[in-house]
Amino acid sequence: MTVRLEDLSSVVREAQYAVRGPIVARAQELERQGREIVYCNIGNPQALQQRPLSWVRQVLALAEYPELLERMPAGTFPDDVVATARLVLRQSGHGLGAYTDSKGMRFVREAVADFIRRRDGIAADPEAIYLTDGASKGVQTALRILVAGARDGILTPVPQYPLYSASIALLGGAQVPYQLDEGSGWRLSREALERACEGASAGGVRVRAIVVINPGNPTGAVLDEKNVEMVLGFAREHHLSVLADEVYQENVYRPGDRFVSFASALERRGIRDVSLFSFHSVSKGILGECGHRGGYFECRNVPEDVLEEITKLQSISLCANSVGQVVTYLLVRPPRPGDPSFALHEKERSGILDDLRRKAAIVADGLNAANGITCQLVAGAMYAFPRITLPPGVTDSAYCLALLEETGICVVPGSGFGQAPGTAHFRTTILPPIDRIGAVVKKIAEFHVSFCRKMTADGGR
Amino acid sequence: MTVRLEDLSSVVREAQYAVRGPIVARAQELERQGREIVYCNIGNPQALQQRPLSWVRQVLALAEYPELLERMPAGTFPDDVVATARLVLRQSGHGLGAYTDSKGMRFVREAVADFIRRRDGIAADPEAIYLTDGASKGVQTALRILVAGARDGILTPVPQYPLYSASIALLGGAQVPYQLDEGSGWRLSREALERACEGASAGGVRVRAIVVINPGNPTGAVLDEKNVEMVLGFAREHHLSVLADEVYQENVYRPGDRFVSFASALERRGIRDVSLFSFHSVSKGILGECGHRGGYFECRNVPEDVLEEITKLQSISLCANSVGQVVTYLLVRPPRPGDPSFALHEKERSGILDDLRRKAAIVADGLNAANGITCQLVAGAMYAFPRITLPPGVTDSAYCLALLEETGICVVPGSGFGQAPGTAHFRTTILPPIDRIGAVVKKIAEFHVSFCRKMTADGGR
Repeated sequence: MTVRLEDLSSVVREAQYAVRGPIVARAQELERQGREIVYCNIGNPQALQQRPLSWVRQVLALAEYPELLERMPAGTFPDDVVATARLVLRQSGHGLGAYTDSKGMRFVREAVADFIRRRDGIAADPEAIYLTDGASKGVQTALRILVAGARDGILTPVPQYPLYSASIALLGGAQVPYQLDEGSGWRLSREALERACEGASAGGVRVRAIVVINPGNPTGAVLDEKNVEMVLGFAREHHLSVLADEVYQENVYRPGDRFVSFASALERRGIRDVSLFSFHSVSKGILGECGHRGGYFECRNVPEDVLEEITKLQSISLCANSVGQVVTYLLVRPPRPGDPSFALHEKERSGILDDLRRKAAIVADGLNAANGITCQLVAGAMYAFPRITLPPGVTDSAYCLALLEETGICVVPGSGFGQAPGTAHFRTTILPPIDRIGAVVKKIAEFHVSFCRKMTADGGR
Repeated sequence: MTVRLEDLSSVVREAQYAVRGPIVARAQELERQGREIVYCNIGNPQALQQRPLSWVRQVLALAEYPELLERMPAGTFPDDVVATARLVLRQSGHGLGAYTDSKGMRFVREAVADFIRRRDGIAADPEAIYLTDGASKGVQTALRILVAGARDGILTPVPQYPLYSASIALLGGAQVPYQLDEGSGWRLSREALERACEGASAGGVRVRAIVVINPGNPTGAVLDEKNVEMVLGFAREHHLSVLADEVYQENVYRPGDRFVSFASALERRGIRDVSLFSFHSVSKGILGECGHRGGYFECRNVPEDVLEEITKLQSISLCANSVGQVVTYLLVRPPRPGDPSFALHEKERSGILDDLRRKAAIVADGLNAANGITCQLVAGAMYAFPRITLPPGVTDSAYCLALLEETGICVVPGSGFGQAPGTAHFRTTILPPIDRIGAVVKKIAEFHVSFCRKMTADGGR
């Protein structure tokens, strides 16, 4: 007898991950048929022509094939690239082909700790840092530590990145949604948190932790210091751990905004009774090295015996991939002023960041220009999550499918992220190239108007 | 309140993974104190001076930094390396920096299907192949499909590779151990399978699948065609799926032995009512590219709707790392006769394989020379799992710890893999360099004799 769908665990069957769901499957089908598809469903910068940073790729080439160090003509690579490749080879002990420590290579964890110290002016412990295959794997590990049964609840934002709902579902835990306030730029309010907690307690759920995504995915909102401190105060009162998804920390666009890490706020207030897990990645920010699956999570106020359990969990899959670990090193230890690579690195970095900033504005402005679309400011991250007014009886899924069929633009329905009842949204990335993003947004806006007109005329059938 | 050990799920606390357990932690501690440690605890060839294949690393260097293609003097790389790097860049669509399909890059899956066709003379479907971060992640996915609750049992060999027991534990399923017969070279017998199944049924466990590791880890045994067919017949009668861990398929040393894949036996017998999941990896074999975390699993007789669930599970972590996917490509598409890289590749390959073959013999012979150690032939894989006679009251863990403290050699106690009651073993890799392996084995043998003498004199205290 072969394995049958009905024998699968219900948690597997019920887990959903819309970012790569049925609409994306249809897009791939159309692409195979020869249609040109613009993939705005996923934050995958290099799939939309963002170029990798030379610094990262030069070091990787040398670390993969150290004989190049001997065989290439002098001057092929800048001196700091050569020195860094040699350092990676020496510090890794055995190059990129060996399993590393379960936690990840020690010298990379030390560099991450140093990065946190420089970023936040606080101490950091390399032994509380775990290198992971992208941030996703780290989130799954932290949730595994926090969810022990069906009554263990995790506060997750609405809208949220569906990694959280899917992972909580797979662990058999309870998702406890809290609503972000769209009207005030997707603000995170204490009242919404209290409301969600009360509802969970009434249902017999013990809330264990709160997830905060900052800058927000899919919302694009950036938390200020007061917001971050409010969450920590809330967590303290309610005996919660905090999962801080900070993978977009470099993606802050609005003048005057700045990224405030949960670690810095925790240390500034001297909080010792809230466990914090914070996540970072090489996939977002300026690098956009999604394919390399690099990232880390840092634990604060997590007891030694729990850290040992985390290490054990990491060890069962042996270790994160070594190349992703090295990319993480290159993320946290970029060229410094005076280094031979510094000027090119700065030029590439600021080029990417300026493009993202301009694209964030083009997307929000262009969508707001359409009647029936309202888009909050994209202050950070890589997405817009506009609200759409739909004719009666039309779902956001049907809308996104029609958009795909008509324009070749692939976005994800708001229902995949969660949204207030009676509202409809979609998520689009801001990542198409700067010379095309305007046309993409214009197409979406035009589609919206014609689709709504047509469906209203059809009576929504 | 911070997270506390007692709040963790019992399945997390109870999962064990001895290959990186307390003895390895102690070894790392000693190493930090300046002791020289020989890590024989884990199959990590490049950590023990095995050199990577030039073919693999040359292509990776070019794929990471394609500008090298323009900037290197002609002739720096062989033409087939250049052509393959260009093919990888073209076929991947966006280079190594983008997320790939959840299943993995299509051209790599096609190459894997082609590899299976050439290896076994059977058809293979790229859409039933999933690229994974090493084989471990694939095994965990397959088990997630098969284990839906506490009464779902998985037949696992004793001794086994503890990835299986740990993953089944984390999924809350039931491990159903079947004993391999040490006396006849760790033979897998139908009687042992029947016995295990009967015991499980009596205990209310529904056996869902059988795990077979071939060549065996830790046993070193290689199954012949009859064995493989017996397992398939057994699975058919008992309505089981088969998980075939074939990561050591290139590591066959005994003249006359050959690797027989489960897929080939399944197709030869025309079996359509047994689901097969078979696993392969870039970490073992000749490549030994453990750090790159590449691998795949192939599904046969798995219905389309279940394949879709597997794809969904893979999508939640987005995709396997792109570099590991490319290494998988390079594993299944090596240089061919007439290609410029062929001669060097064959020289490197046969050098590594010859070394492994010689080391397998040196380890088994050297251990058998010691009074109180009995080691079966190491016919395949990368390990020996000798039986040791211990003084009364001494555990294999205490033995391995003493071996480490006295000699700096790190091996894993048999209890981490499972063993027949009343017996004691340890697992050692055969991987130390050829010019040192003899001395390592001699040290173990000498330690054994002196340890047993001392402990017996002490009365086992």
